[in-house]
Amino acid sequence: MIIDVCFVPAEYDAEKYKGYTAVVIDVFRATTTMAAAFTNGCAGIIPVKTVEEAFAKRDELGGDIILAGERGGVLIEGFDLGNSPFEYTQEAIGGKTLVMTTTNGTFALNTVLSAPCIYTVSLASCAAVCRALREDGRDVVIVCAGTERRFSVEDTLCAGLIADRLSDIATLRDKACAAQAMYQGYRAKDFEARVTASSHGQYLVVRGFENDVAHCLLHDIYDVAPVYRDGIITVTK
Amino acid sequence: MIIDVCFVPAEYDAEKYKGYTAVVIDVFRATTTMAAAFTNGCAGIIPVKTVEEAFAKRDELGGDIILAGERGGVLIEGFDLGNSPFEYTQEAIGGKTLVMTTTNGTFALNTVLSAPCIYTVSLASCAAVCRALREDGRDVVIVCAGTERRFSVEDTLCAGLIADRLSDIATLRDKACAAQAMYQGYRAKDFEARVTASSHGQYLVVRGFENDVAHCLLHDIYDVAPVYRDGIITVTK
Repeated sequence: MIIDVCFVPAEYDAEKYKGYTAVVIDVFRATTTMAAAFTNGCAGIIPVKTVEEAFAKRDELGGDIILAGERGGVLIEGFDLGNSPFEYTQEAIGGKTLVMTTTNGTFALNTVLSAPCIYTVSLASCAAVCRALREDGRDVVIVCAGTERRFSVEDTLCAGLIADRLSDIATLRDKACAAQAMYQGYRAKDFEARVTASSHGQYLVVRGFENDVAHCLLHDIYDVAPVYRDGIITVTK
Repeated sequence: MIIDVCFVPAEYDAEKYKGYTAVVIDVFRATTTMAAAFTNGCAGIIPVKTVEEAFAKRDELGGDIILAGERGGVLIEGFDLGNSPFEYTQEAIGGKTLVMTTTNGTFALNTVLSAPCIYTVSLASCAAVCRALREDGRDVVIVCAGTERRFSVEDTLCAGLIADRLSDIATLRDKACAAQAMYQGYRAKDFEARVTASSHGQYLVVRGFENDVAHCLLHDIYDVAPVYRDGIITVTK
């Protein structure tokens, strides 16, 4: 098994990674929120690129659809839920299908559509996804959603944690080694404080999402491995 | 003082980094070799982008010019020296002016020409350049030359070492923090073995440059801070 990392979606090359399982990370907050949603019984999440597509998809599907996501970190007008994992309670989304659009996470998902298998992962769901990747056995390309298409500390750290946890069976490419070492460096001292001090962490803190940031940095609290297939994310098994 | 890092030259944005001192890193091997050359009395190094430009520049300047550099890691036909620091002895280059073209390092230098001050640095000359940056006091953007325009482990580690050493007086941007943590992670265990196992390390090892790789990973062995100004690199003072 090979593990490679794209620090930003633009580094994903469909030809280079042909046949690789793709793993998409948006720790702050889309893929953490997805893991929370599935833990609380969400039936499925349909990721779309734009707010307009979200409304159109709801109209197309009819029924009890929840509109979810953010722009600039905050709730979109006319939407039911923002992008905080705390909003995705069993009461709010249990048994429901969500249509979701976020600044970084859903964009990154759309980048890897050619992959034969696509997982979404966060620090909060890392153990479950690593278990699925071990069982799957294919080569893996981890795609960090980044922040507005740029490098993000928290996504790269999650990539590093996955690389670290699979390093016993995988060959790590350079950026996977780099992300692993970066994770080791952060883990050695003040992990939460240093990630919270990053630009994306501070962006959320000043908008009042300090609790979200702290929550999104917890490891392995959600035992789900969401898979994106045929236009919808669901949990395996 | 702000410190930011570009993992590849394409991330350098002249507008964003207006007024910043630029620091260019090509650990394997151009900026290490430059440090060796200046330590051994080289008068100046003129970096050019192409082999054709190198020949033309020599003809233009006349006199005792040394042609130096590589393509694909090896000596260029008609050139005097390759890109190994061991070739740059006092006998070979003492008092001489060099015209140099390399795959990554001289390309990166050409990317940052708008900067008010440009240093070249390597692990081998890191202490001297950090001292110069402290005295200079300006904001700093560290530009990793990378390998064929792509992320390279060794250049990012050198960026991380600079960030780490200046962290007492500097505000580190996200990628500077990431590079610092990555350096801390590599330093914690098997630094030389892990960097040698990187793709660029292995590229050089299989071409017989194992000694160069080991040499380029030594820290602070050359006490020079080369500056690129008006088309030529020289050492300060």
